[in-house]
Amino acid sequence: MGERVFNFSAGPATLPLPVLEEAQATMVSLPGIGASPLELSHRSRWFDGVIEEAEENLRGLLAIPDGFHVVFCQGGATQQFSMVAMNLQPAGGAAAEYVVTGSWGERAAGEAIALGPARVAWSGKDDGYVRTPDPGELHESVTADAAYVHVTSNETIQGVEWWPETPIVPNGVPLVCDSSSDFLSRPVDVARYAILYACAQKNAGPAGVTVAIVRDDVPRRIPDGLPAILDYRTYTEHGSLYNTPPVFAIYVLMLVTRWLRDEVGGLAEQLRINRDKAGLLYEAIDESVGFYRGHAVPASRSLMNVTWRLPTEELDRTFVAEAEAAGMIELRGHRSVGGIRASIYNAMPLEGVRQLAAFMRTFAAAHG
Amino acid sequence: MGERVFNFSAGPATLPLPVLEEAQATMVSLPGIGASPLELSHRSRWFDGVIEEAEENLRGLLAIPDGFHVVFCQGGATQQFSMVAMNLQPAGGAAAEYVVTGSWGERAAGEAIALGPARVAWSGKDDGYVRTPDPGELHESVTADAAYVHVTSNETIQGVEWWPETPIVPNGVPLVCDSSSDFLSRPVDVARYAILYACAQKNAGPAGVTVAIVRDDVPRRIPDGLPAILDYRTYTEHGSLYNTPPVFAIYVLMLVTRWLRDEVGGLAEQLRINRDKAGLLYEAIDESVGFYRGHAVPASRSLMNVTWRLPTEELDRTFVAEAEAAGMIELRGHRSVGGIRASIYNAMPLEGVRQLAAFMRTFAAAHG
Repeated sequence: MGERVFNFSAGPATLPLPVLEEAQATMVSLPGIGASPLELSHRSRWFDGVIEEAEENLRGLLAIPDGFHVVFCQGGATQQFSMVAMNLQPAGGAAAEYVVTGSWGERAAGEAIALGPARVAWSGKDDGYVRTPDPGELHESVTADAAYVHVTSNETIQGVEWWPETPIVPNGVPLVCDSSSDFLSRPVDVARYAILYACAQKNAGPAGVTVAIVRDDVPRRIPDGLPAILDYRTYTEHGSLYNTPPVFAIYVLMLVTRWLRDEVGGLAEQLRINRDKAGLLYEAIDESVGFYRGHAVPASRSLMNVTWRLPTEELDRTFVAEAEAAGMIELRGHRSVGGIRASIYNAMPLEGVRQLAAFMRTFAAAHG
Repeated sequence: MGERVFNFSAGPATLPLPVLEEAQATMVSLPGIGASPLELSHRSRWFDGVIEEAEENLRGLLAIPDGFHVVFCQGGATQQFSMVAMNLQPAGGAAAEYVVTGSWGERAAGEAIALGPARVAWSGKDDGYVRTPDPGELHESVTADAAYVHVTSNETIQGVEWWPETPIVPNGVPLVCDSSSDFLSRPVDVARYAILYACAQKNAGPAGVTVAIVRDDVPRRIPDGLPAILDYRTYTEHGSLYNTPPVFAIYVLMLVTRWLRDEVGGLAEQLRINRDKAGLLYEAIDESVGFYRGHAVPASRSLMNVTWRLPTEELDRTFVAEAEAAGMIELRGHRSVGGIRASIYNAMPLEGVRQLAAFMRTFAAAHG
């Protein structure tokens, strides 16, 4: 079966070992069924059970209130960027407002601006996306007649996360959140959102499935004439089965959420573990007195994607290469920003983070 | 590992056993890499090799000429229905024309009509979708100034397939084909098409990835302002990596196409096998002198989805239940049409079809 490395990829990302072992055990034949999860119909009794449990686990973990749909889409956050804009921007209506704290928010805003009335209400771009805005700045930039306000709860590329929560918006303005890279990493007050969405390939499963939690007034606002695949009603009205869903990806998501429920014990406990893990890396950064320079300001530091730089790009490359030789892969920062990025999602074991922190200290001592 | 049944599901459908065994062997850790195919980045060297080989295998198997892009989308045929309409229907231009030989063509046409100028040029609906049109009928219904002509090479629900090929259309009119359920089951003259697309979950892999073969003049016709996820240029200009692709589904598709290339020996050989397999079932139908009534007229019979009825719906149900007890699952016809459907894609072993044909004879003798 082979040794496993510690995989710090930003997504697709490391998954819990018990989930992989279960997927392996069933890959040729599910007990009592005699076929692989890759081969079974989305109309089968087996899949009825899978998608029901997936939804139930998500509802339990996130305490999703009644009055919210949980649907499974494809196309990742990129598809949601289009869907949100097309479903919530009435023709001739008020502009959507985007609070942009990193590259993904920028892409979401770009798509909305291309498709209808939308504007960037606040952007951290001029500062290099190192922080989320203060309440005062937001108060001045977000308006009470926005069609909706869109935020990104964690910016995967820059490692900038909202704490303690995404912004308070004016009463009655729908808040939409791209939670792709911190979904299921901490408790969330779902009731605050009109739509909260997340691609699975960080904390929830493999690439190929996207969860959208949609408040039940949203479908009533959707204009007619949208492409079926981009209309939330296609999913809410057909239990995500209007067309063939990504069966296997939903199966793995179900196993991951079962693991979170049964093995981890829920999102409050997972948050505690995530704080501990991220703490080890930020401590190694802060302790290095400038050898490692963290990207985000301390108050906006991500627990999921820890980003930093070394004194030179050459040292960045040496760091990544030596870490890889030591069994820690995918530490190179996103190609658009460089530096180092350690993605430490739920499934990254504490031991992997301990090894990385120890490696950081040894490397700093050798090269600092 | 458990026994395997014969799975006649229309999709997701049975996969080649060696592919499942390979996916099982690598599920926890790919040799030399130390992580699961579910966990690896779409920017990794491993995935570079996977997506390159997937494309190369498709190009080899289908003899795809230069001047065609091969791209990987999500969202199945349903997403392609929207994409084709939005990418090829110029505002204020000529209508698209749909040749409808079953339920999927009907859905494709419905989506195009909802999104822009489009019409049904020919439909087999009044006959209950039992055949493809004659060349004479087509000549009268398809016009030389169609924006494009859309056909469905095999109708999965009714079991109606074009032979020897999809229609000849007027010179210069782009021909678009939904080949979802007979893709890779026989050689195809790709040069005839502007776009040929297929979801993977019949012959090419698991649900969650869709192949589109796009002639290189298509991107130049696409209007601006489309949602990024529905614009073919998003895929052709970024090697299907504009956003995170369904990594694992593409990995399995690569394994399936490798199996077709190396184990089966190509599509001409696969067609020969498919003729033999379908022949066994149609023979059992024809021999039953009316106990089994095949759905399609003989000239339009599908090699992929063999559809028939028994004298009563109760006998249909008994047939399905007894077959399941004998290790042959998913023989119930699509819920919209009833009856029996045996989907016998490439990966269905000859032995499974032999067992089903023998079961049909025994059942007819007992109940006929």
